[in-house]
Amino acid sequence: VAFPSKATHQQTRAYNAALVLRALYEFGPISRADVARLSALTRTTVGDVIAELMADGLAREIGRGPSTGGKAPILLELVDDARQVIGLDLGEFRFRGAVVDLRGRVQATTEREVGGLNGDQALAVVHEIIDELAEGRRPTLLGIGVGTPGIVDASTGTIRWAVNLDWQDLPLGELLHKRYDVPVQVANDSRAAALAIQLFHGRRPTNLVAIKVGRGIGAGVVLGGELFHGDGFGAGEIGHTVVDVDGAQCRCGQFGCLETVASSRAIAAFATEAARDHPESILAERLAKAGEDVDDAGPGGARGLHLDDVRAALVTGDEEARRIVVGAGRALGQVVAGMIGFLDIERIVLHGSVASLGQPWLEAVRDEARRRSLGLLSRDVTIELAPTTDDLVVMGASALLLTAELGLAVGR
Amino acid sequence: VAFPSKATHQQTRAYNAALVLRALYEFGPISRADVARLSALTRTTVGDVIAELMADGLAREIGRGPSTGGKAPILLELVDDARQVIGLDLGEFRFRGAVVDLRGRVQATTEREVGGLNGDQALAVVHEIIDELAEGRRPTLLGIGVGTPGIVDASTGTIRWAVNLDWQDLPLGELLHKRYDVPVQVANDSRAAALAIQLFHGRRPTNLVAIKVGRGIGAGVVLGGELFHGDGFGAGEIGHTVVDVDGAQCRCGQFGCLETVASSRAIAAFATEAARDHPESILAERLAKAGEDVDDAGPGGARGLHLDDVRAALVTGDEEARRIVVGAGRALGQVVAGMIGFLDIERIVLHGSVASLGQPWLEAVRDEARRRSLGLLSRDVTIELAPTTDDLVVMGASALLLTAELGLAVGR
Repeated sequence: VAFPSKATHQQTRAYNAALVLRALYEFGPISRADVARLSALTRTTVGDVIAELMADGLAREIGRGPSTGGKAPILLELVDDARQVIGLDLGEFRFRGAVVDLRGRVQATTEREVGGLNGDQALAVVHEIIDELAEGRRPTLLGIGVGTPGIVDASTGTIRWAVNLDWQDLPLGELLHKRYDVPVQVANDSRAAALAIQLFHGRRPTNLVAIKVGRGIGAGVVLGGELFHGDGFGAGEIGHTVVDVDGAQCRCGQFGCLETVASSRAIAAFATEAARDHPESILAERLAKAGEDVDDAGPGGARGLHLDDVRAALVTGDEEARRIVVGAGRALGQVVAGMIGFLDIERIVLHGSVASLGQPWLEAVRDEARRRSLGLLSRDVTIELAPTTDDLVVMGASALLLTAELGLAVGR
Repeated sequence: VAFPSKATHQQTRAYNAALVLRALYEFGPISRADVARLSALTRTTVGDVIAELMADGLAREIGRGPSTGGKAPILLELVDDARQVIGLDLGEFRFRGAVVDLRGRVQATTEREVGGLNGDQALAVVHEIIDELAEGRRPTLLGIGVGTPGIVDASTGTIRWAVNLDWQDLPLGELLHKRYDVPVQVANDSRAAALAIQLFHGRRPTNLVAIKVGRGIGAGVVLGGELFHGDGFGAGEIGHTVVDVDGAQCRCGQFGCLETVASSRAIAAFATEAARDHPESILAERLAKAGEDVDDAGPGGARGLHLDDVRAALVTGDEEARRIVVGAGRALGQVVAGMIGFLDIERIVLHGSVASLGQPWLEAVRDEARRRSLGLLSRDVTIELAPTTDDLVVMGASALLLTAELGLAVGR
């Protein structure tokens, strides 16, 4: 029987340190007395914790504030650039990395194309990116956060399954920890992005579903301000929920998965088909042009239209493009309706390449989600595009590490 | 900014009292020293808390245990019947109530038929039931727990919407609290049942989805051992998620809700239709018999077959009955697949009148849920019938009150 008990001395110390850090982070420059008041810790405890933070270079005194009667108090602040974090986004065709400071401010970025690499080659590229970003920063590197497609055991950093990278049961967290000797956090990319949205663009109530709609489709579920991973770290893996049992075969082997009707690949494939069926359409024009350009075989080597073509045709008012975009949005809306009935989370945020299709797509998602759910629930639900075009996965991967190591709610 | 801070003195006292209660509850008879060891509280604190509990009649000394060297320690236990709780299940056609002790053991029950009552009449029946059950128990009545269909603001006990009882924005918790002057907890019936399953038949991991499939369909979601209510107390309201936009009209006004294809009403209606279309079937035989019996107009006054008829025909191997039952199970399985992809909760429990259809129905739910979800996730999911035929809503309603008032995880 798990029996709740009093916190251990060590837990108390870590908790106190996090309280002080957070006071500096959110309210600095701030005096020791105000930190004590905010955190309800004693002045002695606050003094001890701050002495440790200063010794570690994480806090510094910046002079005296205004006097409130007696001697003017010394003010302290967090040293934002005292530590750096490397955040990685292991996308299907491109790995991106960034160095951020304790406030999540980007200090450097780099990226590599990775299409067609096998598992070992892809891992070598991960090392290459980290080596480049860590160069000259090793002494102050706080850790590494990684967002990757697939199902990730976030507690150990093991990638259980990532179809696009040919990785299965890869202990990426452990491998990187051994090589770089810093803490490492690994999580699914959609979950990392959800954390980034919660931390950088959060609001109360702190429940949130963020859905990444690109070549794959995945969601991150934030409950009470924290990522919910599910029993097997599969929470949010909505891309392979079957929405049409008579549908096309998915790369996972099943038929009619959400990804076969609502992903960027599906939209591009539908558009290519429509271009062939409707030679008078703008889509057909673009396909003809693509055919002339032999270099335009697309990231996966597939000949045909891309999401960019569909977006361009949509903007010019092409009816076929509109029909396809609305169909893809409605398929997603169907799954969103299920989420509303199941969890009644009122904030649903959409991001990823498909979200760049904008309003016509968003309206289709909203319309179908409302049409298929109880009005009493859906009337309070907002379904919106992400409030930023930032690199959410990289930021989320960094945030994973910062929250795990320092207990900081970055950017709030 | 919500800033975490140290617990207040009062919170600490309540928390300490809950720790001690729980030690008595789970490990009693037990000595003060062992309570202190288990809870990591000081002996002085444990002594003080136990003195208060004894003064309140909640704990008692039962003599000395075996000596472990020195003087044999005095053993203490919880007084199980020191307090009683009234639990209510406000079903669509029948209100049921029970008195339970601190261990959830039933001491008395009562029920009333309520079909066709308006809101005020229904409320009068609630009073009648509580008056009967509280008779002679007022001094030791700890409180009242209520499970009701509809969307309930569990924080205030206000029923936002319960279509079957013609209740809208009814502050039931407040009304009962004023009338009986004891704490009252009100929650949706499916959520209460989920809590009962978690508490009385729980296991680790402590995530659970319990789906009640009867005339209505609703779920309760337990995350980390606690009920998840959603932002608007609508979590689990899956009955009005649309699974077939071209489907029949639901009593909520929409078309093709899950309830129109998978509830007991839907199954009975499909069976009545099939009986008319297949005069050679066992269903048709039963319908003919039902037609002869003028009293058999069904709880809702509807002429036709009931769920019991379908169950009976199923047992005799009737093909039409089987087809209908499998179809209803598959429709539910489709929604369950969405849950698996969205939250990856590995324990899914089914209960309610439709669950009495047993294996053929359960297999259909499982089969469709697996067919429509990612194998890597669904392989670890168990979908089972509730491990009891207890009155889960009544027990859950009682448990709501016990956990809120005493912090007890009843029955574990």
